[in-house]
Amino acid sequence: MLKGFNGIGQKESASGNQYLQVFSTLEQKLLPQKFSVATVAEIEEAVRLAETAFDAYKILTAENRAVFLETIAEEIINLGNDLIIIAMQESGLPEGRLLGERGRTIGQLKLFAATLREGSWVNAVIDTAIPDRSPIPRSDIRMMQVPLGPVVVFGASNFPFAFSTLGGDTVSALAGGNPVIVKAHEAHLGTNELMASAIKRAIEKCRIPDGTFSFVIGDGQVTGMQLVKHPGIKAIGFTGSFNAGMAIYKAAVNDRTEPIPVFAEMSSINPILLLPGKLQQDPLTVAGVIANSITLGVGQFCTNPGVLLLIDNDAAGVFIEHLIKLLSATPPALMLNPQVCTNYYKSFENITQQNGVKILYKSNNDASEYKGSAALLQASDVDFINNPALQQEVFGPSSLIVLCKNESTLLAAVQSLQGQLTATVFCDVTDMENYAACINVMSNKVGRILFNNVPTGVEVCHAMVHGGPFPATTDARSTSVGTLAINRFVRPLCFQDCPQEFLPDALKNENPLNIMRKINGRYTTEII
Amino acid sequence: MLKGFNGIGQKESASGNQYLQVFSTLEQKLLPQKFSVATVAEIEEAVRLAETAFDAYKILTAENRAVFLETIAEEIINLGNDLIIIAMQESGLPEGRLLGERGRTIGQLKLFAATLREGSWVNAVIDTAIPDRSPIPRSDIRMMQVPLGPVVVFGASNFPFAFSTLGGDTVSALAGGNPVIVKAHEAHLGTNELMASAIKRAIEKCRIPDGTFSFVIGDGQVTGMQLVKHPGIKAIGFTGSFNAGMAIYKAAVNDRTEPIPVFAEMSSINPILLLPGKLQQDPLTVAGVIANSITLGVGQFCTNPGVLLLIDNDAAGVFIEHLIKLLSATPPALMLNPQVCTNYYKSFENITQQNGVKILYKSNNDASEYKGSAALLQASDVDFINNPALQQEVFGPSSLIVLCKNESTLLAAVQSLQGQLTATVFCDVTDMENYAACINVMSNKVGRILFNNVPTGVEVCHAMVHGGPFPATTDARSTSVGTLAINRFVRPLCFQDCPQEFLPDALKNENPLNIMRKINGRYTTEII
Repeated sequence: MLKGFNGIGQKESASGNQYLQVFSTLEQKLLPQKFSVATVAEIEEAVRLAETAFDAYKILTAENRAVFLETIAEEIINLGNDLIIIAMQESGLPEGRLLGERGRTIGQLKLFAATLREGSWVNAVIDTAIPDRSPIPRSDIRMMQVPLGPVVVFGASNFPFAFSTLGGDTVSALAGGNPVIVKAHEAHLGTNELMASAIKRAIEKCRIPDGTFSFVIGDGQVTGMQLVKHPGIKAIGFTGSFNAGMAIYKAAVNDRTEPIPVFAEMSSINPILLLPGKLQQDPLTVAGVIANSITLGVGQFCTNPGVLLLIDNDAAGVFIEHLIKLLSATPPALMLNPQVCTNYYKSFENITQQNGVKILYKSNNDASEYKGSAALLQASDVDFINNPALQQEVFGPSSLIVLCKNESTLLAAVQSLQGQLTATVFCDVTDMENYAACINVMSNKVGRILFNNVPTGVEVCHAMVHGGPFPATTDARSTSVGTLAINRFVRPLCFQDCPQEFLPDALKNENPLNIMRKINGRYTTEII
Repeated sequence: MLKGFNGIGQKESASGNQYLQVFSTLEQKLLPQKFSVATVAEIEEAVRLAETAFDAYKILTAENRAVFLETIAEEIINLGNDLIIIAMQESGLPEGRLLGERGRTIGQLKLFAATLREGSWVNAVIDTAIPDRSPIPRSDIRMMQVPLGPVVVFGASNFPFAFSTLGGDTVSALAGGNPVIVKAHEAHLGTNELMASAIKRAIEKCRIPDGTFSFVIGDGQVTGMQLVKHPGIKAIGFTGSFNAGMAIYKAAVNDRTEPIPVFAEMSSINPILLLPGKLQQDPLTVAGVIANSITLGVGQFCTNPGVLLLIDNDAAGVFIEHLIKLLSATPPALMLNPQVCTNYYKSFENITQQNGVKILYKSNNDASEYKGSAALLQASDVDFINNPALQQEVFGPSSLIVLCKNESTLLAAVQSLQGQLTATVFCDVTDMENYAACINVMSNKVGRILFNNVPTGVEVCHAMVHGGPFPATTDARSTSVGTLAINRFVRPLCFQDCPQEFLPDALKNENPLNIMRKINGRYTTEII
């Protein structure tokens, strides 16, 4: 059923003579399908098509683009169980999880479609002319967000649907009016091919310009870098490791005549602050909720809680003891691919070798069957504050307890934290008052701050921020989940003294899209 | 009256032993006042103060910050005529122009104050909880924009008030809740000192945290770079040359552990497209308007029209002839400083030496008295398209006519354009229809597109975009003029399941600020 082709616009293309295959941790073998690595010429053609498609795609109406996104969602459903079977084989993820992730991916497409229909996301701002102003008249000045141009997307292995070929980056770029070229993730090339076929059919059905979507097969260093450095590319979305993200980011700035924005979501240890009032009340329940979050999906989430900060006291002792019990009762489970599994044990090992790190729990299982086992480490406040190596992400079901002597070392530990996607505070009302400074400092470091809840499970909604200060991402001013993600691939364009009939609908006097606009400083849906 | 100190927080400081002096093109001499170059320790102290001030300044109410900005405006007025006299001496700009610019600077402060009071700029988005959703409940998720942290501002010499110490970068950063450290522009150190004294008094009067504003004296390579590379700095605003802007941008990405955003406004040649219908109707008026724009302020504007694209025909001939006549009737005038004047003639000379460039008009005046004379060059469509050197900015009263054979070479010339702050189209309705493709491509290249009007004179308003694709700026997703500039120095922060009493006012159920918010996908000022 799979073909192993690249998708260069609507064309299936396999002109190269190199191939990739996918290793299945589920079947513990290399899968038979060969995928053709894109040639330099195929990549060049994908960019050329995207550039041509841009001028036609960007002027489609919001309604056209909304229908397009909804049609993609339908076509994903039409892929039926084949999609789930291949994704299970390639990712080792269980059926239930993949069905849920498919639902999320479809929901995401529909939410962006709804956002396009509502229309106000273009942030229309209008200052009307004042012809009789002295000493000089004021012009008519109007602005709105417009798309950047062809976007390259590098997906993640841990969400083969929701953060890959048809994930948030692709959907937000398409919603904003940008053609997309996906560098297919090497860990799930079959899943990529099926997802790409859904978008291909939607392009055909909705008569979207050819070249609005392409995907190419190959590795990051060669195939990926050819795209990153191509002058036709105007922005990049990436989810993955710190090293790969930084290589792309630096190439986009240093190895191009025209630097372009890179939205790389990289590494985060998602600190949890366990404040004493809350912990005192119910250490067992808190331990249960956190154990669940650490081991959910074999810890293979970018929001996995990798560090737990708490003040040393009796309740902390009870909490830690219970957490160890729960983690040791969690059976090892299949990881996504050999690299993820190897990296998990390697980065875990690296933390254990740091000064003062104590292993509280570690299973005797090893990585022979590509399974990840839960683990718990402990370090002192002083060691954590003085050693940035303890802030390295361990991608898997492990966490580090930082035992703080008192309120002031807890604050110092929080101050020493690098940028994060999330921080969580377990607290009662008294804690929130007593530790206000600590929570305030914590909020400077993160894209999302949670209260008495766990960071895993990122809601796709309008208010979500899945982003945060470096090294969590390369651009804290954006999110990769939720409808605000559309802002990454657009820029403001201002029209001065443009005749009504040539203005985009969003800026016309009669407000034909009935959107919320800022007119002379006041928000309104009124006509002018 | 001047002291020559650095302003390290509220403290006057001059602990170094190096000094700068300002050369006055008006008086053709080095001015006597010595300004103390900041030491490494003074710069370090300025950053330390800014970091400490941040946590206190960012939680001030919008009303506090609005009053602060208005108080700065009053204090500028209180500087009286001294400010104008020193600025004239240091910049060579005439009194009327400086009075106008002071008005613009004050108006800018008041517009940002009004934006803070209106309050909706924080872009509050709220998705309320759905506790009974299955399979899992939805959390309460709310987001708003929050400040980044200490911002460094590098001002421009051509607007000693509106784009310097108290210019748009400083005002938008302060409005957003960020402390600011200004690297004082070496060409107007006295003006900087007076402007800084106005903000110092406002900080005192409004009890703003010490360290919210500092300024340091020194050059870009040493003083500037120490700031750019300091881990305490979270963003940079810059207006100036391409080379200096790129040096800062690359250092901010490559020479820091944590890369930070750089908003550098650099170089732009602001193409004017003269379409045949319009030109046919009234070549003389169009020539008059354009000649004015080329020579306004001795061409020392970042929006100065540096290239005029038109199709060769009779009307074009009449237009060019008249433009030459008007430019040659414009007397040479004093430029800002020796560097600007030298660079003007040097970069002009460089263009004249390119293949096929014809000098249509050039005065016999030379640069001996630091005066800039108007000039007009001409190149063919083919030469312009094939030689990027013809797109180098010439900062001064000169422009290049690109004579195109026909519609298709005009389109090709537009396609070859690099990113620009502005593009202008002189057209009638028929032109707009006939050249729709050309105008569409042009809009991809610019931050602002104007119709039958000139790009010089940038309105400070809500809808203004003074920005654009590279090399006009390093970040096309922003503007340095108008209230949208506040978005450069903020980032989204998401609160999940945060108790009401601990939410910022902008996100509280009862909407105490009465701002426009997006609640469950719908824009409203309603309470929840």
